[in-house]
Amino acid sequence: MSDQDQRYMALALSLGRRTQGACWPNPAVGCVIVRDGRIVGRGWTAPGGRPHAEPQALAQAGPKARGATAYVTLEPCSHHGQTPPCADALIGAGVARVVAALEDSDPRVSGQGFDRLRRHGIEVVTGVLADEAARDHAGFFLRTEQGRPLVTLKMASSFDGRIATATGHSQWITGPGARRAVHAMRARHDAVMVGAGTARADDPALTVRDMGASRQPVRVVVSRHLDLPLLGQLARSAAEVPLWLCHGPGVDSERVRAWEGLGARLIPCALRGPQVDPADMLRQLGAAGLTRVFCEGGGALAASLLGDDLVDELVGFTAGLTIGAEGLPAIGALGLGRLDEAPRFDLVETRAIDGDVMTRWCRALIPG
Amino acid sequence: MSDQDQRYMALALSLGRRTQGACWPNPAVGCVIVRDGRIVGRGWTAPGGRPHAEPQALAQAGPKARGATAYVTLEPCSHHGQTPPCADALIGAGVARVVAALEDSDPRVSGQGFDRLRRHGIEVVTGVLADEAARDHAGFFLRTEQGRPLVTLKMASSFDGRIATATGHSQWITGPGARRAVHAMRARHDAVMVGAGTARADDPALTVRDMGASRQPVRVVVSRHLDLPLLGQLARSAAEVPLWLCHGPGVDSERVRAWEGLGARLIPCALRGPQVDPADMLRQLGAAGLTRVFCEGGGALAASLLGDDLVDELVGFTAGLTIGAEGLPAIGALGLGRLDEAPRFDLVETRAIDGDVMTRWCRALIPG
Repeated sequence: MSDQDQRYMALALSLGRRTQGACWPNPAVGCVIVRDGRIVGRGWTAPGGRPHAEPQALAQAGPKARGATAYVTLEPCSHHGQTPPCADALIGAGVARVVAALEDSDPRVSGQGFDRLRRHGIEVVTGVLADEAARDHAGFFLRTEQGRPLVTLKMASSFDGRIATATGHSQWITGPGARRAVHAMRARHDAVMVGAGTARADDPALTVRDMGASRQPVRVVVSRHLDLPLLGQLARSAAEVPLWLCHGPGVDSERVRAWEGLGARLIPCALRGPQVDPADMLRQLGAAGLTRVFCEGGGALAASLLGDDLVDELVGFTAGLTIGAEGLPAIGALGLGRLDEAPRFDLVETRAIDGDVMTRWCRALIPG
Repeated sequence: MSDQDQRYMALALSLGRRTQGACWPNPAVGCVIVRDGRIVGRGWTAPGGRPHAEPQALAQAGPKARGATAYVTLEPCSHHGQTPPCADALIGAGVARVVAALEDSDPRVSGQGFDRLRRHGIEVVTGVLADEAARDHAGFFLRTEQGRPLVTLKMASSFDGRIATATGHSQWITGPGARRAVHAMRARHDAVMVGAGTARADDPALTVRDMGASRQPVRVVVSRHLDLPLLGQLARSAAEVPLWLCHGPGVDSERVRAWEGLGARLIPCALRGPQVDPADMLRQLGAAGLTRVFCEGGGALAASLLGDDLVDELVGFTAGLTIGAEGLPAIGALGLGRLDEAPRFDLVETRAIDGDVMTRWCRALIPG
């Protein structure tokens, strides 16, 4: 693979990321068409998932697609779904070469898109920037392969890892720059998720604000007993912005009716011990189409997800203040005895944002 | 001030930092002598505090000092101490111009060094890179002005701010790179300090290893009851590397004799409540000559220092693992009610070190 292939693929990846959070359950794919060293078409999965990236890029290229190279972040689809196959569109447009980052793991596509292209005499190169693409498409792959969305766990804490004072005072530990970064991260996920304790304590709206977002992420609240305030921000906005409530069995039927009346979607989940089973909950969210979930706590939900090794990425925002041991911990009890039992994450990025420190970590690279 | 003045002063500051931790109670000063755009002499406070930076740089310059500019990070001394005044040395060498970052706050020097130079026809410029110099000399100024050393509080913790599992397992949360950085930081402080709980739990040596350090920092252990193991690493090495024990009143006289017999220095301190009074303890350490103390916990000592606003710098090393709420907190109870009561620090630096994240914060710039 050449430097040039990598450069165009990096562009395709950045285009694909534009629709992250807004095209589930479809993957957010990017496509760049290059002829004679000039970019003649660019495309990305449209909000809502259709049209796909390739036909948009081909439409832009028009007759210049003939003999060109198409860079795509994922294997072009080969089956007739709600749109005709992208592989056929590339063949029809007469592209000479297709460079793909990854093979699709959807059994309807896997390898067949490439086969179809090759059978029509198109040169196919795969594996260009595969690791980056695997990270970008990790939610899509997790849902296809394991039936659950990717989970990013966010924590905004003091230097000593506290998310609030003992009395629950948490506004604001981090500054406006960090909060803006959180809104940008929310926008790149299909859903924002919190536990019932956080929903009750903070009365959050969980919406994306001031980002020009084309689509609000689903708000997911995990509440074993469905005992959430019917007069809070979530309840008031349930008709406008999707609100999904994951609850345990045997909840009060009046509460169910009240929330359904407000416009919320109720998702009954299995229990494990006294709590909603995190694995079952994520399976249900995956079945409902979610590929990327941004969990903002609280400590009990965070511990429940970490305890089952269901957290794929950690994002920390650390502020320069100390709250002390009585403060609320970011992550509840994990029941670890020894350090080598602790879930470990690899550092992806660290950056100062307006006097706070942002760190990103990933559990392990999810293979494409 | 010119760009050139700033460049040479930055060099003088970096030279001065070479002896940080090894020249207390003297300031770690740097000096650069420049004639006709060429550096003709470089000097820094020698380990132990003498000779000072200026005479060493002048000796290197020899006759080339005549008509030259001398850059010094602190006002040259003007009193006869154990060495002749540096101001006189600069005058005698015939330098034409002295550029200083800061005025000394020692009443025997303050402003008089500059006056003396000016009276001999030397042009004096002050305030070049004053903020950086104030940070470098903060320990020296704190001791001169408030009678206490600068305190850096270090924390090596998990993503969620825990320094050990519930069972006390803490080796190793951070990786070898972070631990090497800690040794380098120890070497730049006059003393390394821990509380008795940490000394008992970890049996640390608290020495600087693999750094080619010319001098080991003093080890300070704070132990209300002087109930430290007489067979641990600290006890075994007390004859070779200074070990100071800060304890409360009324401790067992046999313990006092035993520790004195091992070579430790005992520092009786006042109590406040059930604990050693951190302000009194730091005054005693200041009186004993320390200008920079590197506190490595544990949580109770950290909370005691933070509670009295006696922490000047925070250093965090964060690893990509989660320990959960039962883990040991880095900072004990601070008794805060509201967030605006929490001690706040400004971000100085953040950096990835071998997969861990290092952050440095300062309480406020200490004026020079």
